[in-house]
Amino acid sequence: MKKVLVLAAHPDDAVSTMGGTIRNFVKAGHQVTVFAFGNGDEDYREPGGREEAIRRYKANALKSYSILEATLDCLWLPDFEVFQTRELYQACIGAIRKYQPDIVFAHYWGEYFQHTGMATISRDAWNQAQWACSADLGKPWAPAKYYHFCGRDGLGQTTHVVDITDSFEEKLEAVKAFSFEFGEAYELDNSLRIENAYVGNKIGVKYAEAFQRSFYFPEKVLDSEALF
Amino acid sequence: MKKVLVLAAHPDDAVSTMGGTIRNFVKAGHQVTVFAFGNGDEDYREPGGREEAIRRYKANALKSYSILEATLDCLWLPDFEVFQTRELYQACIGAIRKYQPDIVFAHYWGEYFQHTGMATISRDAWNQAQWACSADLGKPWAPAKYYHFCGRDGLGQTTHVVDITDSFEEKLEAVKAFSFEFGEAYELDNSLRIENAYVGNKIGVKYAEAFQRSFYFPEKVLDSEALF
Amino acid sequence: MKKVLVLAAHPDDAVSTMGGTIRNFVKAGHQVTVFAFGNGDEDYREPGGREEAIRRYKANALKSYSILEATLDCLWLPDFEVFQTRELYQACIGAIRKYQPDIVFAHYWGEYFQHTGMATISRDAWNQAQWACSADLGKPWAPAKYYHFCGRDGLGQTTHVVDITDSFEEKLEAVKAFSFEFGEAYELDNSLRIENAYVGNKIGVKYAEAFQRSFYFPEKVLDSEALF
Amino acid sequence: MKKVLVLAAHPDDAVSTMGGTIRNFVKAGHQVTVFAFGNGDEDYREPGGREEAIRRYKANALKSYSILEATLDCLWLPDFEVFQTRELYQACIGAIRKYQPDIVFAHYWGEYFQHTGMATISRDAWNQAQWACSADLGKPWAPAKYYHFCGRDGLGQTTHVVDITDSFEEKLEAVKAFSFEFGEAYELDNSLRIENAYVGNKIGVKYAEAFQRSFYFPEKVLDSEALF
Amino acid sequence: MKKVLVLAAHPDDAVSTMGGTIRNFVKAGHQVTVFAFGNGDEDYREPGGREEAIRRYKANALKSYSILEATLDCLWLPDFEVFQTRELYQACIGAIRKYQPDIVFAHYWGEYFQHTGMATISRDAWNQAQWACSADLGKPWAPAKYYHFCGRDGLGQTTHVVDITDSFEEKLEAVKAFSFEFGEAYELDNSLRIENAYVGNKIGVKYAEAFQRSFYFPEKVLDSEALF
Amino acid sequence: MKKVLVLAAHPDDAVSTMGGTIRNFVKAGHQVTVFAFGNGDEDYREPGGREEAIRRYKANALKSYSILEATLDCLWLPDFEVFQTRELYQACIGAIRKYQPDIVFAHYWGEYFQHTGMATISRDAWNQAQWACSADLGKPWAPAKYYHFCGRDGLGQTTHVVDITDSFEEKLEAVKAFSFEFGEAYELDNSLRIENAYVGNKIGVKYAEAFQRSFYFPEKVLDSEALF
Repeated sequence: MKKVLVLAAHPDDAVSTMGGTIRNFVKAGHQVTVFAFGNGDEDYREPGGREEAIRRYKANALKSYSILEATLDCLWLPDFEVFQTRELYQACIGAIRKYQPDIVFAHYWGEYFQHTGMATISRDAWNQAQWACSADLGKPWAPAKYYHFCGRDGLGQTTHVVDITDSFEEKLEAVKAFSFEFGEAYELDNSLRIENAYVGNKIGVKYAEAFQRSFYFPEKVLDSEALF
Repeated sequence: MKKVLVLAAHPDDAVSTMGGTIRNFVKAGHQVTVFAFGNGDEDYREPGGREEAIRRYKANALKSYSILEATLDCLWLPDFEVFQTRELYQACIGAIRKYQPDIVFAHYWGEYFQHTGMATISRDAWNQAQWACSADLGKPWAPAKYYHFCGRDGLGQTTHVVDITDSFEEKLEAVKAFSFEFGEAYELDNSLRIENAYVGNKIGVKYAEAFQRSFYFPEKVLDSEALF
Repeated sequence: MKKVLVLAAHPDDAVSTMGGTIRNFVKAGHQVTVFAFGNGDEDYREPGGREEAIRRYKANALKSYSILEATLDCLWLPDFEVFQTRELYQACIGAIRKYQPDIVFAHYWGEYFQHTGMATISRDAWNQAQWACSADLGKPWAPAKYYHFCGRDGLGQTTHVVDITDSFEEKLEAVKAFSFEFGEAYELDNSLRIENAYVGNKIGVKYAEAFQRSFYFPEKVLDSEALF
Repeated sequence: MKKVLVLAAHPDDAVSTMGGTIRNFVKAGHQVTVFAFGNGDEDYREPGGREEAIRRYKANALKSYSILEATLDCLWLPDFEVFQTRELYQACIGAIRKYQPDIVFAHYWGEYFQHTGMATISRDAWNQAQWACSADLGKPWAPAKYYHFCGRDGLGQTTHVVDITDSFEEKLEAVKAFSFEFGEAYELDNSLRIENAYVGNKIGVKYAEAFQRSFYFPEKVLDSEALF
Repeated sequence: MKKVLVLAAHPDDAVSTMGGTIRNFVKAGHQVTVFAFGNGDEDYREPGGREEAIRRYKANALKSYSILEATLDCLWLPDFEVFQTRELYQACIGAIRKYQPDIVFAHYWGEYFQHTGMATISRDAWNQAQWACSADLGKPWAPAKYYHFCGRDGLGQTTHVVDITDSFEEKLEAVKAFSFEFGEAYELDNSLRIENAYVGNKIGVKYAEAFQRSFYFPEKVLDSEALF
Repeated sequence: MKKVLVLAAHPDDAVSTMGGTIRNFVKAGHQVTVFAFGNGDEDYREPGGREEAIRRYKANALKSYSILEATLDCLWLPDFEVFQTRELYQACIGAIRKYQPDIVFAHYWGEYFQHTGMATISRDAWNQAQWACSADLGKPWAPAKYYHFCGRDGLGQTTHVVDITDSFEEKLEAVKAFSFEFGEAYELDNSLRIENAYVGNKIGVKYAEAFQRSFYFPEKVLDSEALF
């Protein structure tokens, strides 16, 4: 069993971008934890609906993650308070040290400013978590690999395309748990099929998800066989 | 035994940038072929010395590759005729199909226009060689991986750093076969030690070489275990 | 009559970069609102002059906007407190929903960090304002087009050059209302003439202003005639 | 009736990337000409098949363009001879002056070196064709707008997404005329549906094609109303 | 005697990146001040060690700067509180005005988010410090030149390489004062020799440091002789 | 007396982009040589006018350079044959070695493909000319500095702005020698005044020209005083 950690601004970000890959991991017996921040408090359509939005978003998130059979660890901060702050940076370092993942997934520098901010502090936390410092946040931990999942604005470069054909329907169900948040006007079922089929077509499978591996720390090749 | 193909503008380019990795492969029992173009005819220091330059460069190249124990297949074109032409493009496709390599190494988009031109046609030939077309150039062949070696102007991003500590002295000897071409003023021994030590220091070994894997074709992940 | 909204860090930013285009709109009978943040409190030349600076800056701004005949809606925050915060982000979404503009103008990613920060939250607010969310900030509103005006550091690409020949003198007068802030050493009259003449020369008119249309949301072409 | 000119490396490039938009134009009564260069002589699967490849490719192209009801004007050069040469540059200028199009479509800087080369000389020819020079190539002509169509490697930025729902089946038929060239292994029907559905989903229609308008020459706005 | 100001996130940043150049300046009789922010409070390896870390870091910094014979002016803020804030921006402007340097050195946009943030506010403070504004922060001051020093992630472009051969051993000693912070596992002596030798090799000296001059304000050439 | 070499695609390129700076050099007693390639054979407005165009262009060029009092050394190649070829590359190396300039000026990577191609081979020739090679092209020569002049599409970054106020009228006269080539529709006098005034305004002078110094080879700083 291996451990996977996903750092996401909001719980639904991880589900819509890599829910199929999460399911693949879970079904293979690995442990997947999503560490997230936002509480969905801006997802309300009538004035005064903020509290109800938080309550509903939490319920939807719990339902979604029970479908994925992944662990959700969320700070439930106000949606627009997910920033590059000392507290969030320390929280990311702490999460990496607590969950001791083999690999980490996080946002890429695209989309709106909160997701871009998360991409930066997640990458820096990956770096800092492995130093002998900040001992109150746990013992140093160095995840072996780090990938960016693919949001609305794409990736600088796709390095890995993961076949999720066998997990797609479960992903779809998990995304639908957030159907209120995606909005009625958005044809969630059809859109998700089209997007994951488009990625799948690039590698000749029915459905897939795209990722970019980070080489911020290059691969150490001590045995040249690893190049094949 | 696996097969490695290096596409290089000039025979010495492959030796100075990745001679250590070539030696690693050869010592592990793999077959390495360097397919190159230029004949060194500009490396002369007195007027009228072009013919002598070609003769000397060929002799130096043979000596260098016998040290590496790698195969050199060179078209011996005039140095400044290495361009993006129909003929060179077909030659690159033909070489990939003839040698059927498991992995290919080539220039990156840096340095002067000939190396940049080679980076482009090598990458495109990697693509085109696998299509069912141009049958006169051989049967379609799809190398599994493609790396850029690192010239004077660096790489866009280093993805792999290869330990060449055990092969460094042999690489140095092979590079010294071209000592005329590098020029007397250039302290070859010292410079090469410094450069490969600098790269080695990034992964905690004595000497190393840097590469950038190309994800122009992303990695197909049919089993998510491959992400670990 | 159409509605135009300009999102600017400081009231003078909108006047100096697009005062001519604002006048064009006003003279054509459209309604122009500039939503801004900073109070000019750093524009003082003697210690202890902060309060006087705020008073003067407000007076200058009112004079300038009365020349333009545009509406100024300013939060009058300290100059160096114009940041990417939850409050400013919500304020931008709220302004778009309140004024329901046909088109929006905002900063580009250039110049100093406050203008760059404004470029980001303005663009994201344009996105978020049209979703069915954050109902306390008003009803969803989707402006049809979005342009960046051109500050000191230029635009990534100029897509539109607007003839302001007939409005230039009025723009100049409106900019001169801020002559204290621009400083005595700066020959405002001459500089503005040169800058707008330089842009005008690109399209063969006497004076012009440059803009970059944002295609963060591409143009939906339901009838191909729209391509002509 | 308006005139549309497409500059393409090979006849099939225009069909697969913008065949739906071409059909939209034709059905609306506009005249569409595709000016192309390559003769498909590399599309052969058995040694010695070059002549047969040319013959077949021409036949396929004629069939495809008769489905589109667009005019094909092709130089039928060897596939790998489509370069940045004096001859091809003059040919592009000449085509723009001969066909006097209202709008031009051409490659973007992506994909392999021939398509990238075409992107450059097409853009420069658009510029040069409007100058009072090179009179042997025809009278100066200035197309009003210029778009890049979208190849395998995407666009720098999509500025326009064109609904082709009503023309998709005709486009598919026209692309299938080149089914030999695309190869048996490639599931053409399914792939094209997925790709155009993916683009269509971005604007809420069934099938669409993506374009990037070039602002190498910015839009001249003599009347500010044009900004709405 | 000239005045040099270095703006650094943490006191050790200036020593490890440009300690040799600082020593060169000091030995030539110039005055060097490093204005820094962080207090090293994250450099502890056992829970509860934060206070001891601050105490040790300050002692190490004092020792290091006494070796360099440069002045350290540090705000001793918590390490992860070095952000783009109104206070830090004003502090940078104030430092430039207080020390009235001939040249300024600062971070480049690389490495983790705090160093990137410092690169931005330092550059903007260089700009703002010379305006007739914010008089409480001192009289306007315009340093003649501005350079970025080179951190872990390199520079966009190296414009200047400075020979530090004669100051290298003193730099090494000053860096070693921070050996706790760099960590035992890191072979500081060897690594620093390799890194500065690598840069030195580019200009044919034993040890050197790399810099990028900022041309955010281009050089005013009133006499063309200055171009030689 | 110092020596200046300008490498330009066409003789008029050097005059319109840096004629003022050339005059500054000449008046200060320096020797300026412009090494160019194109013969203006595309500048004709009636069919069959190519020969007359060449004759007129040469006459105009001679007149222009006699105004500048600079030396023109031109290969008079057909306009559209100015490419990245072995011959042009060798010609550039040869010119640098023959004229032994203290500084070199050349195109930047902007504008159409011929100017971009010249930017590349000029930069590479600057590199290669200093090596001990290609002795038939002359003895090795290393110009101390290298600048890009500024064409229609601007520079990546302006590093130097040169005051040409005292030489502007002479530059204007020299540019007007090419008034046929610029075309009647183009108000040459007015446009040049506006463009050079725009650049001049950036440094507070009446007229100026912009340049970008190339740091492809960084500045060697053997004495740190050179940083002031």
